[in-house]
Amino acid sequence: MTTYHEATSVTPLGEGKYAARLAEEYSFGEAVNGGYLMGVLLRAAVAESPHAHPLTTAASFLRPGQPGPAEIVVETRKTGRTAATSRVSLTQHGRPIVDAMVTTGTLDPASEPAYQGARPAMPPVEECRPSGHDTSGFVAQVDMRFDPAVMGWLDGEPSGRPEMRAYFRLADGADPDPYVLAIALDALVPVVANTGHTGWSPTVDLTWHLRALPAPGWLTVHGSGRLVRDGWNDEDVEIWDSAGTLVAQSRQLARTARARTRK
Amino acid sequence: MTTYHEATSVTPLGEGKYAARLAEEYSFGEAVNGGYLMGVLLRAAVAESPHAHPLTTAASFLRPGQPGPAEIVVETRKTGRTAATSRVSLTQHGRPIVDAMVTTGTLDPASEPAYQGARPAMPPVEECRPSGHDTSGFVAQVDMRFDPAVMGWLDGEPSGRPEMRAYFRLADGADPDPYVLAIALDALVPVVANTGHTGWSPTVDLTWHLRALPAPGWLTVHGSGRLVRDGWNDEDVEIWDSAGTLVAQSRQLARTARARTRK
Repeated sequence: MTTYHEATSVTPLGEGKYAARLAEEYSFGEAVNGGYLMGVLLRAAVAESPHAHPLTTAASFLRPGQPGPAEIVVETRKTGRTAATSRVSLTQHGRPIVDAMVTTGTLDPASEPAYQGARPAMPPVEECRPSGHDTSGFVAQVDMRFDPAVMGWLDGEPSGRPEMRAYFRLADGADPDPYVLAIALDALVPVVANTGHTGWSPTVDLTWHLRALPAPGWLTVHGSGRLVRDGWNDEDVEIWDSAGTLVAQSRQLARTARARTRK
Repeated sequence: MTTYHEATSVTPLGEGKYAARLAEEYSFGEAVNGGYLMGVLLRAAVAESPHAHPLTTAASFLRPGQPGPAEIVVETRKTGRTAATSRVSLTQHGRPIVDAMVTTGTLDPASEPAYQGARPAMPPVEECRPSGHDTSGFVAQVDMRFDPAVMGWLDGEPSGRPEMRAYFRLADGADPDPYVLAIALDALVPVVANTGHTGWSPTVDLTWHLRALPAPGWLTVHGSGRLVRDGWNDEDVEIWDSAGTLVAQSRQLARTARARTRK
């Protein structure tokens, strides 16, 4: 079994270039998971930076990634004492798969919030529902427990609101770090499953912010949306760690799967 | 007087390059407003695209822009039937000021929401408070009316929550369009003024999504934040139009101004 840490590792080739091998384990069918692609490219971006953490990542998903070799190019655009910014591109066979802009910095683990909003409600993990029992592909790499209140769509009874939430940890037992947050942010069932839009809902772009370094243990991943319109929907995700800290925030725009009417 | 439409105009130079002139009217002191910079670069990105509207914009603010000439380079990364994506860089004197990734598409004005979240509350415009009476610079180009509930910070009585909201229109009388939304998204007083952090709070990155074409009339601009920590804060902005439609969403990460304790 390839651990997530191994699956996101990159080899420096010099001049900001890195080699990677996209692992089949992090795929759904033919396409590699988008959060995993971010994890890989962020390993290269941070390796190239004087700072320790990927504070902001804005990613455009141009084409589906395939298992196999990939190249990452990191172009430094600004290096400062507090933060550094680069343009990063992950390519396969010369075709861009993901373009990103990454700002790195170094967070202080001892920092305390000057303000933190309310933590969204979540039932205890033992009342939540495992995502499935696939023994291959992406689903086998993660351990997710969904709030039953957002899983009625499986029985044709969606909640009517774009929402999805679950506990998350890696199946390989590794504690969360910023690269694990990258994959957790894009691991939920699309929030629009709860407005009756089930099926493939490809992410066009996703921007996320690392706000604090996560404590060991379960993450809780809260997804919601504000507008489903004209074939597009937003999906906002907050991740809270086991210590009750808001550790990551993301927003993506996705193509909305077609609505299915119940027969 | 230079209208906003004139101030954001760009001249094609061929091969994806455009010339612009950053107008002094859209500056605070020495630095050009970030939303205005987005408006300028989006004019170039859309001119280079087969699609009509800037659906997603992820911008990294690398250095303050100065009034005067600027160049924009648009590099197409993918062109599809539904959307096209480009990397865009606005430079001055060969130095990058703003890097962006832009996805364009064409929205259908007749589309109806399949789901729309609740519109945040806002008092009537006549109960709101003008931002000031500067006769030069950025403040003179916009007409903003702030909800009095979020303006106590001016008298040393911030609300305690990162929040800010106002009505917005251009002083030149032009109706809103996607480029006007770009400047409206970055026009509020920083939300952290209401957690006692007043002063300069530079935006590091800002991603926004155009969700619908705005109706004529006042825009309402709702800013909020979830976490102020370690010298960084998020700022989320929603813009609703006069017809009650959610037309734009943004999130930025900013350096938080130092907290001022009241004497």
